[in-house]
Amino acid sequence: MTPFVETTLIAAHEIAAILHDGWRQEFGDHGGIGAGGDRTAGIDTLAENIYIEKLSKFGKIDSEEAGIVGSGEATIVIDPIDGSDNAVSGLPYYGSSIALEVDGKVQEAVVVNLANGDCFYKTRAELMQGKIGSDRFMPVVRREESTIGIFEKAYANPELAMALLRKKQKFRSPGAVALSLAYAHYVSFVIFAGPRRRYDFAAALWMCEGLETIVEEELLIVAKERETALQLHRLAQGE
Amino acid sequence: MTPFVETTLIAAHEIAAILHDGWRQEFGDHGGIGAGGDRTAGIDTLAENIYIEKLSKFGKIDSEEAGIVGSGEATIVIDPIDGSDNAVSGLPYYGSSIALEVDGKVQEAVVVNLANGDCFYKTRAELMQGKIGSDRFMPVVRREESTIGIFEKAYANPELAMALLRKKQKFRSPGAVALSLAYAHYVSFVIFAGPRRRYDFAAALWMCEGLETIVEEELLIVAKERETALQLHRLAQGE
Repeated sequence: MTPFVETTLIAAHEIAAILHDGWRQEFGDHGGIGAGGDRTAGIDTLAENIYIEKLSKFGKIDSEEAGIVGSGEATIVIDPIDGSDNAVSGLPYYGSSIALEVDGKVQEAVVVNLANGDCFYKTRAELMQGKIGSDRFMPVVRREESTIGIFEKAYANPELAMALLRKKQKFRSPGAVALSLAYAHYVSFVIFAGPRRRYDFAAALWMCEGLETIVEEELLIVAKERETALQLHRLAQGE
Repeated sequence: MTPFVETTLIAAHEIAAILHDGWRQEFGDHGGIGAGGDRTAGIDTLAENIYIEKLSKFGKIDSEEAGIVGSGEATIVIDPIDGSDNAVSGLPYYGSSIALEVDGKVQEAVVVNLANGDCFYKTRAELMQGKIGSDRFMPVVRREESTIGIFEKAYANPELAMALLRKKQKFRSPGAVALSLAYAHYVSFVIFAGPRRRYDFAAALWMCEGLETIVEEELLIVAKERETALQLHRLAQGE
């Protein structure tokens, strides 16, 4: 684990602890985020401030709300809360996305599920998965037995959604795209329709290296198998 | 907390521990379910067996795979893994649903999110929320600031899905209906389209007592506000 990844995970841990009010100290020792809506007010800013404070030493921060902060050769692209509508609404599927870029290329990336503690990080050497607050990480292993895909913003491409349904291909729309891309090695596929924001995609898309990826202006398809990706693309083209 | 609820939560804790391999002992102390697909093989049967073993003393079990097991005045209706496609596929949104019925009426109900430890239970006296392995439970409090709804099996009613999108009403389809109904006090609404199975709905629908509910043959609408429920119903009717 690099110093950047380690520091990012410490920051994420701190954010999860505030959101869940002691949740990390002893799993289960509190009602958690679901219990008090007020704890989620302003969580984007709260999380952003913690990441800025902890990560500025590694380069300048480019975050959605704060814009560019600080200076340095590297740029750290942050979506402090991916899936903030879910977080505010009590649906446990939201996280953080952090990418360290040099010369426009991602060098290190972290995606954290703040609702259940799943962490993913990627460096040039490895793609690893573990839990917030743990130092035991294992390589991400593909799940070949997956029965579902994820289709984020399915409503931006209802034709494709309907085509998948006609094919009896089950999919979910959980509502946090960086998180969903981090799970791309597990599920059958991940589709995102509509325009993409750099904050949401910088870290997680790089984690999809090695998977089959089709990137178009308003459509992103990621799948474990090349044939699946091509088939989804054909469906999207109405074939 | 009643003996039935307490015993059910102990069983759920045991199941979560097996699924996550030590996850409950120290939050974060392992890669969790995402790391090894083999650990999810046969989880429905595994969970069902644990519930049968622990809960048979309270009455006969009616579970999806095992059918009716044991005897007693009360019937315990169990969906051991709600959202098993998610569990098998590594998407962290799946749980258990357990209802204790006497004379066809639910008396006590438990819904547990096995992916992040959220627990909900309802007795005649209270509706409470906490975490697996904790003894600190708090009353479920509505989240008025919710910005999203949940629409499970949206594909079974694409007209309604499209109507919601035209209204710019954001919704998610995370894929575990008992769990989604347990979150109904938080999110703006929960819709389920298609035929309903008793195992999925017995516990969670009773937890929606006090919310506005419209129950039809192939459509279930739950909302915090009566006007929201009626509006969704009008949309479903194509008005």
